[in-house]
Formats: sequence, structure tokens, C-alpha cells
Amino acid sequence: MKIETMPEPYPSAICINTINPNVKLMEYAVRGPLVIRAAEIEEELKRGVKKPFDEVIRANTGDCQAMGQAPITYIRQVLSLALQPELLDIVDYPADVKERVLTLLKGCNGGSLGSYTESLGIEVIRRYVQQFIEERDGVPSDYRDIILTTGATQGIKSILQLLNCPVDNKKTGIMVPIPQYPLYSATAVEQGMQLISYFLEEETNWGLNINELKRAIDEAKEICIPRAIVIINPGNPTGQVLTRANMEEIIKFAYEENLLILADEVYQSNVYEDGIEFNSFKKVLVEMGEPYKNMALASFMSCSKGYTGECGLRGGLVEIFNFPADVKAMFYKNLSAQLCPNTVGQAAIFCLVNPPREGEPSYELFMEEKAKVLKSLKERAQLVHEVLNSFEGFSCTIIQGSMYAFPQFKLPPKVIDLANECGMSPDQFYAFELLENTGVCIVPGSGFGQKPGTYHFRTTILPKIDKLKIMLEKITSFHIDFIAKYS
Amino acid sequence: MKIETMPEPYPSAICINTINPNVKLMEYAVRGPLVIRAAEIEEELKRGVKKPFDEVIRANTGDCQAMGQAPITYIRQVLSLALQPELLDIVDYPADVKERVLTLLKGCNGGSLGSYTESLGIEVIRRYVQQFIEERDGVPSDYRDIILTTGATQGIKSILQLLNCPVDNKKTGIMVPIPQYPLYSATAVEQGMQLISYFLEEETNWGLNINELKRAIDEAKEICIPRAIVIINPGNPTGQVLTRANMEEIIKFAYEENLLILADEVYQSNVYEDGIEFNSFKKVLVEMGEPYKNMALASFMSCSKGYTGECGLRGGLVEIFNFPADVKAMFYKNLSAQLCPNTVGQAAIFCLVNPPREGEPSYELFMEEKAKVLKSLKERAQLVHEVLNSFEGFSCTIIQGSMYAFPQFKLPPKVIDLANECGMSPDQFYAFELLENTGVCIVPGSGFGQKPGTYHFRTTILPKIDKLKIMLEKITSFHIDFIAKYS
Repeated sequence: MKIETMPEPYPSAICINTINPNVKLMEYAVRGPLVIRAAEIEEELKRGVKKPFDEVIRANTGDCQAMGQAPITYIRQVLSLALQPELLDIVDYPADVKERVLTLLKGCNGGSLGSYTESLGIEVIRRYVQQFIEERDGVPSDYRDIILTTGATQGIKSILQLLNCPVDNKKTGIMVPIPQYPLYSATAVEQGMQLISYFLEEETNWGLNINELKRAIDEAKEICIPRAIVIINPGNPTGQVLTRANMEEIIKFAYEENLLILADEVYQSNVYEDGIEFNSFKKVLVEMGEPYKNMALASFMSCSKGYTGECGLRGGLVEIFNFPADVKAMFYKNLSAQLCPNTVGQAAIFCLVNPPREGEPSYELFMEEKAKVLKSLKERAQLVHEVLNSFEGFSCTIIQGSMYAFPQFKLPPKVIDLANECGMSPDQFYAFELLENTGVCIVPGSGFGQKPGTYHFRTTILPKIDKLKIMLEKITSFHIDFIAKYS
Repeated sequence: MKIETMPEPYPSAICINTINPNVKLMEYAVRGPLVIRAAEIEEELKRGVKKPFDEVIRANTGDCQAMGQAPITYIRQVLSLALQPELLDIVDYPADVKERVLTLLKGCNGGSLGSYTESLGIEVIRRYVQQFIEERDGVPSDYRDIILTTGATQGIKSILQLLNCPVDNKKTGIMVPIPQYPLYSATAVEQGMQLISYFLEEETNWGLNINELKRAIDEAKEICIPRAIVIINPGNPTGQVLTRANMEEIIKFAYEENLLILADEVYQSNVYEDGIEFNSFKKVLVEMGEPYKNMALASFMSCSKGYTGECGLRGGLVEIFNFPADVKAMFYKNLSAQLCPNTVGQAAIFCLVNPPREGEPSYELFMEEKAKVLKSLKERAQLVHEVLNSFEGFSCTIIQGSMYAFPQFKLPPKVIDLANECGMSPDQFYAFELLENTGVCIVPGSGFGQKPGTYHFRTTILPKIDKLKIMLEKITSFHIDFIAKYS
């Protein structure tokens, strides 16, 4: 039986014109179209499609273990036993590992990683984070101001969201370095906030020039209300480690402009250059004394980087400092609706801040593995810098820290015209050609931002040394051919 | 040396007047002030403060393992070995467990759970999800439309965010049942969306009355643009399982109003009443044929509930259906800035959708454990219903599914006045008194919404049977005293 009046053809309840305009606008180049194409090429290679290369080298994300870095034994021993406590009686793991597992499980509701935790994270872990930060900085910390998160990403997004308070159609402004890690621009756009770009100074090894900060904020005040400044130290994608003098200048600037300092310090253990050391913004700010030590700050850390490289476990933390009590209450309430960060990520942070101590049975192996990872990263940082900087086509600052190089290169006018015709930025055009011709997947500088008329790309230093050499060889010889082709 | 002009006392860069107004407005009762007080009471008990009870019974969240439910052996075996693959050669676990571990690790970048995954989740897991859904529903699924998430919560929040598209100052409206699980109201408020409340019908066991849906949407159209309808089935906090006839009515309503269906189906394995079965919205919609099978839908699932109860691992998934390709591209781009869902949560979903099959060595134990959990939940659902419904002060619908009872009770006018004076809702006042006098922590009905003038609370059925009996006895005798005191 046919119904007489059939319903109209279904106009989809969800369509491109009626979805969130901010979601449409936001971009995240680290996982953008280039990476999607890289995955397609991998599929094509599997299907036997002939290419001028055998494999894709993914130098686009700081994904340590994907590139062959081994997990730290101590961490995986703790995690596996914590998930399956019957193994405590079956497996012959060191006593300190087993002690950590018991401490951890005692902190879990019902003694299980399968239970929800407090929204701010398991208390005993937060207390160890406090101790870790106090040992690192030599200034007091408070576990009640430490929040465990699902990767540093979630912490950063939550803090940015908390700040979003437009007034009279003026957006909330967030100062972000250019080049930046695009999580900041993506989140700002997604939340409808105003990005206030300040340029890092490539000539002074990507330092922050206070005049440039002033220029940026003064211009921005016409259109938005600046509320916070993001500093990424050690730098991503730029690899610099800020000097203490520069940090003090930045703190004074933030003080004068009444800005919340958002210190992205996820690469704090990744410092390679001799004589250079990492200082946390909180340490510097406290040591500067009155009135700076009363400034509000949020600092982010992660188990994804450093020597642990546990990206997939999504463990992170934020320490907030000098937040008023009523603001904290609102922030904690907001976090509670996300229930809790994942327990295994929390447990990874627990291992990171509570490593084997001298004299404990796991200590030696742990120190050996940690040193090996950091030494190898240092060697690779030096190699990448040396090769790229000595090559005629590129200039590349010293990689003092983090996991990336961000070399600058010149492009012939023909490329710029061609790229325009394809609706791409010139460095994106370059990156696609590099990928299609060599299988090397890097991220064009435009994904992080760069001074107009300059071109860069970001590559990780993470491929194993042999593959890294091959990759660098591929990049440099591609560059020669590319310039020849389009000159 | 003193500086002549000292900087002004620091006006905090972050203060209550300049943070996100939506964050200030949002509420999430499941982890609200009552739960904060419960934690304080636990501390007081530890410190030896005398109370009329020895322990807090946390019946406020569906936190299975916190209440003593044992994890499923198969799942924990797979997870522990996947995190520490050397155990494959050390531990005598069943061959199917080891085979699952190898399949899982083969799907991970670099063969490690420590690597980032695709933003949508590990492909091999999504393919198993497809198979699981096809077996459940008997209709096709597509792994490319299945997204793994950090708990169902993240999936729900991401989809709601995607829909947020105000037009000419009219907010985007989301139809949400009252009573509801407050994640929906919290997220809507946080995102600046309009909640369109429709009342469930307690008299028909919390069914959806189409006239009520029409009333709600017609009123809402004056102030917002309705875009989606949330249905929680099995119900939270209400415990009903929708009949197929009711689902068909709802689908027709959504069709007529051009609404995206958001099917919260996280309790799909928690169905207790004989003769009642769970149908997914996608199955019903597809089986209804043209034109309904072309409707857009998103369905959510989790490893936190069912028989697995792995809340802390934060594993979830969303299946989207009939989303236009351009919308999917935007959604996937947006997810990419969150990098990826945590790998251990993904691995838990892998176990859930790829359980031991008949004939495999883990099969018997797995089936035994699964049946034991579900049987015990069924017994507890029946017990809670029986006790609460037979008690003079309460009426309580049959708990057909999920993990909660939502009994109704009457309150004397004196309580209502007193509560007003304290700035509380009357049921919140009741819940605080219950907590302070008995240590039982439930959530007042106002946290989920209820018809004006009616009072409810939500309790989980999760305490172990002996403790559950004590809890029910505490609640009923408290109720008698409370009513006597305030009448």
C-alpha cells in the first residue's frame, strides 16, 4: 500500500551551512591535508603503486615511539601491573615497581584503575607532582593547585575556554607566538577568541622582543581585550630555550599589561645545548619577588615528550598559581563535567614524577634508559642542525631544546605564482612536492605562522639516526632539484 | 636600593568578573556540592570525627568498580600485555588473549600504545566496532563513520559543539529529556546553546509523549533554532527502556522537525526486565525504510557501563550516520586538534567489541564473568525497585535498564520553606540531610530536572548486595524521621 502523501526528500538535519562556523574556520596543520595525503600514499605503497621511494617518513608530529623510541621499562612495568594486579604475584618485577603499583592502587577508588577518579586527578599523584615541581624549582607548590589532564592539550583547551569572556562585542585576546604550536590558534578560533600574534625573532634564536610584544598588544587593544600570553618554552616549532633575562622581561611585560601567563613547558626535559638550562616561568616569577611573585600563571606539562614519549597514553597536568579561590571553584566545576582524566595517563604522570630513587632496584636501568634517550635526541638535534644549516638552501637556528627544527629557505617567484594558482601557500606547495617525490612528510611553516615573505618547514628530529640521515639527504637533494625546476 | 615608583598591587590577571560567563552558569550535579561535602565527611571520619555512621556510601555516580565490581579478566589480560609486550613471553595467558594483543599492537604506530593514533582512533579497532554494530543491529555499518573517543562524554561534547550555529542572535536549540543526564545541560550552557526541555512521562514509565515533544519544540522556536534531539535509552536517571513503537514515533517526530537524533545508548547492555530488549535508534530508523533511513543520527557507546564498567579508562565511541561528507570533513578536522583518544581506552573498546568467541580458550571464563555481573545488576535493580516502591514514602518505576533508580517522594511545606531560606531546592535540602545523617550520598532530582512540584533523587544500584540492603534501610528510616521532623 502506498501512502498518498510521501514525506519530502529528507533535508539532512546536519549540513555544512548550519554547523559551527568557528569549527569551519579552525585549522590544525600538524594533522592537516598533508598528513591525510601521507596516509593515502602509504595505502598506495601497500597496494603496490610505484613511487620514487619505498616508505613515508613521518616527520610531522612529535610521536617518539612511533619512530622507534622504546618506552621506559619502569613505566610500563608499573602500568601493566596496575592494570592487572594479579601479576604482582606472578611476575618477578623489582620491588620498587611493585611498591609504586600498590601506592597507586591505594589512591584509586575501589583499588582499581577502572574507577572514576576525582575530576582533578588522583590525590596521591598530585602530591607527588607537587614534590616533583618543588624539587625542580626550589620554590613551594601545592597539590591542590595541580590538575591532572588528558594530555596537556586538554588542560590548555580548558584554561583557554575559562578565559573566554567577550565584553561589548570585543573578543577575549590571547597573545600567541608566531611561529606557534597550532593548538593555540585552533582553540582560539574554535572558541571565538582573538589571536594576538607576536613574532619571535629568528635573528636572536627565536627570542621574545619586548618591543614586538608591545606592538602586538597595542594594535590588538583596538579590537579585543587581551587577557593572557602564551609562551612555549622550550619552543615548538622553533627549538629555542629562553634565557632567564628574556623571561624576566616577559614577566614584567605581562605584569604591566595584566596578562595571565600560560607557560607551555611540555618540552622541559628536552634541552640539548651545553650550558643551557630550563627555568620554569613559575620559578623565575617567584624568585623575582614582589610584586611579580603574586602574578597568576598556568603551566603545562605532559608525559608525551621528555624522555618518556608516552603520547598515546594522554597524560598531562597543569599547575595553576595565584588563581583567586572563586575562579578555581569555577574551573574545577567545569572540569567535573568531563568526569575525570583517564587513569592510565594519570598513572604515567605518577611514574614521571615519582621515578626510581637512588638505591632502589629499578634505579640503574631507569637512569641508563633515560640517559640513552636524551643523549640520542641530543645527537639527532645536533645532526639535524648541522646538516640543514650547512646546506646552502637553508638557514637553521641551533636546536637548543624540544624535538624540532624550523629551517628557513627561499623560494623562486615562479613557485609563489604556481602555489597561488593552486590555492596553496608557497611552503605548502613545497611540502606537497617533497612528500610526493621523497615520501618525507614535514609541516609547512604557514601551519605555525611565519613572518610574511619568509618560508620555513618544521621537521621532527625523531627518526632513528640512520633513517634521519636518509631523510636529511632526501630533503636536501629534493631542494636542489626543486629550485632548479622552478627557477 | 628602593625603586621610586613601585608597581601597583597586582590586580589579578584572572578574576571572577572576567572569566567565561557560560562556565560560571553551568552546573553538573553528579559531581556537585553534595559530592564535595561527601568527600569532606570522609576526611572527617578518617580524622576520627564522630558521626551517626561509619562510612559514606557513594551512590551518586555509576562507578561500578569503585563499588567493588571486579574487572573482566579478559580485558585486563589484554591491556596489561599490550602495555608491556615482553609479558607475552613470560605470562601464561590464553592464546586468544595473546592473539588480541598482537592484533592491537599491529594497529598501533611503531607497534606501541605509547604512540599517537589517527585522530578518529586505531583503524583495526574501528573495523571491529563496525562488525560489532552489524551483529547487534543486523544492518550495515561503516568503520569510516565510527570514531573512538575519550569516553562517550568527549564524543557527546564534540558533536554538540559541532552543532552550535547561532543565527541572528537565535541560539542553537537542543532537545533534552527532563529528567536528563546533566552532561547535556552542562555542555549546552557551556557552549552557549539553548536547552529545550521535554518532560518524560513518569506515569508511562518515563516514556516520550509526542504531544509533549511538540509542545516543547513549538515554544522553543520563538527563541532558538532547534537542531537536535537527545534521547537517553536505556534511561539515565530514569531506568526505562524505550519500546520500539515509542522509538518509531520519536523518529517520525525528528523527521518532521528536521532534527539530528543524538542517541545516548551507553547503557545498551544494561537491560534487566524479562521480555524487554534494547533496540538501537539506528536499527529502528533503518528498518523503518524510506524516508527515515536517510536521517542523520549520532549514537554513543562506552566501555564505562555495561558489564565492563571500565569508567576510569575513558573509552568511548560515536557512530555517525548519514552525515554529509563536507560536514564529516569538518568534524574530523576539529577532532584532529585534540590529537587522539587515549590508546588504553581505545584498547578497552577493542576488547568490548572483540570478545572471546565460542571455542576460544578465554570464552568460558569471559561468559561466566559477564553473566555474573549482569545477573547481579539485575538482582540489585529488582531489589532497589521493590524496596523503594513498596515503601510508603516513595513511588519508583521499574528499573528496566541502566544502573539507577529515580524514586519520587513528597515533601512537607515546612521543608520547602526551610530550603528556600537556605537557598537550596527542597530535594537538595533533603539530600544534604540524608548525607549528614546516614552517610548515603545520592543526587537530588533537581540535578537532572523534574516536573515542578515533584521531588526525586537518583541512586545507583551499584553497592554490593549487603551494602545495598543497608543503604536502602538507611534511606527509608531516614525518610520516616525526616518527614516526622518537618511535618
